[in-house]
Amino acid sequence: MLELYHFPFSTCSQKVRLVLAEKGIDFVSREVDILSGAQHDPEYVKLNPGHVVPTLVHDGRVLVESTLINQYLDEAFPEPPLLPRDAFGRHQARLWTKRLDDKVHGATALVTFSVGPRNIVLQQPAEQREAHLAAIPDPVERAARRSVIEHGAEAPEFAEGLRKMIVLLDQMEAALRERPQGWLTGPAYGLADAAVLPYVLRLDHLGFAALVSAPARPAVAEWYARSCARTSFATAVAAWIPPGVVDFMRAGGDAAWPTVEKVAAGLAAG
Amino acid sequence: MLELYHFPFSTCSQKVRLVLAEKGIDFVSREVDILSGAQHDPEYVKLNPGHVVPTLVHDGRVLVESTLINQYLDEAFPEPPLLPRDAFGRHQARLWTKRLDDKVHGATALVTFSVGPRNIVLQQPAEQREAHLAAIPDPVERAARRSVIEHGAEAPEFAEGLRKMIVLLDQMEAALRERPQGWLTGPAYGLADAAVLPYVLRLDHLGFAALVSAPARPAVAEWYARSCARTSFATAVAAWIPPGVVDFMRAGGDAAWPTVEKVAAGLAAG
Repeated sequence: MLELYHFPFSTCSQKVRLVLAEKGIDFVSREVDILSGAQHDPEYVKLNPGHVVPTLVHDGRVLVESTLINQYLDEAFPEPPLLPRDAFGRHQARLWTKRLDDKVHGATALVTFSVGPRNIVLQQPAEQREAHLAAIPDPVERAARRSVIEHGAEAPEFAEGLRKMIVLLDQMEAALRERPQGWLTGPAYGLADAAVLPYVLRLDHLGFAALVSAPARPAVAEWYARSCARTSFATAVAAWIPPGVVDFMRAGGDAAWPTVEKVAAGLAAG
Repeated sequence: MLELYHFPFSTCSQKVRLVLAEKGIDFVSREVDILSGAQHDPEYVKLNPGHVVPTLVHDGRVLVESTLINQYLDEAFPEPPLLPRDAFGRHQARLWTKRLDDKVHGATALVTFSVGPRNIVLQQPAEQREAHLAAIPDPVERAARRSVIEHGAEAPEFAEGLRKMIVLLDQMEAALRERPQGWLTGPAYGLADAAVLPYVLRLDHLGFAALVSAPARPAVAEWYARSCARTSFATAVAAWIPPGVVDFMRAGGDAAWPTVEKVAAGLAAG
């Protein structure tokens, strides 16, 4: 039996659900409400000492880290294979997912928080806000979260985070132009595509769709359309998005758009 | 042909050399002097856009990221296998190496810099120091580097970095007590052992050997002695350590030892 502890809207939960769907694997859903702080619940922290979602429990064995969970799923459930067969191709796929883990994931969390959840958090009593901040184990992450709560899209962490997301888009655009109608690591859909998709989707959900559309990035736009047309997208992503959430996010994103344009123009200029 | 761009003393270079040695793979050595800033050379940055060592070039194909290079080597040169055969065991091995990448590697770089290279950098002309700082691409990393150059072991980054290294040691001690005479992920030496060894070695080289010895951590001490007795350690690590460097590092570490004891005691107290 597979049990997935996850949050519907989280990027890392989405990437694991996408791989489960691509492989046609059923799972028992255990939702962890990260907006109300359920990831800090001592019982959950026993499963996931990093206080994050998702966690996969497979026949009683606990697996953490979405990137590694997806590699595990590809090895434990080999069909269809989601990594290239050759060692160099597999390295390239792991490089995409490592890039997300090292650079893009934290950046996306801060960018999202700046324009979305921030507006909920600002309406909470100060003690509740402080308790959530105090529960973040890493001091650097805690300080960055505080900064985007206080300053929103004006925080330096917003611009820096967005810059990292745009660098990813440019890397994708370059890779996808080399193989029209293909996927990030070859002719078949793979772990890299499933891992990147939630971050591209997030930019769209934040109202920054121009960044992932023609004329800015036609190859990304075409890849994104094909990704969203797959059955896995419907069952693993679209079905889990609560009504109203995207409208709420886009409203925050519209207000931040002038800052986004400035960051994008700065990168394009060199 | 394999060409390895590396630096003798760097942890990530050591872990790749260890895997090459365990598999008996010959390589052409291309040294990159990271102390004089050769990792920022435009020709090198074409190979390694992250400005770091090592980089492996295998028959003209460029591979970066030591953790992924080691997985590549295990797939391209399967004998002897350095990952467990079962999917869950492989996940556990990748969890060790991801933990290093996410938490321990940056921490180790800061701890090392605080007590070793800092003393060289402080004697450089201010312009040279500033030029090296300006070449670090990530602003957060750049600010942390500046802090440890200015404050050494008194910098908050030193204490926080050391804390992360001690957390790793405690995770190792717990894992190794479960399998006396075994290795981190089973009865055979593997990628996790090769990846962790340079960080344990570094603590020893910094004069903090008490942290990796009995009575503090007898299982780590026993694992460390067995690791250093392997042929791979002699050819991939010991042979590359320039004479005098360890004495220089330990002199800096001795001065920092009271701070180390305070951090260790704070963690032990919970």
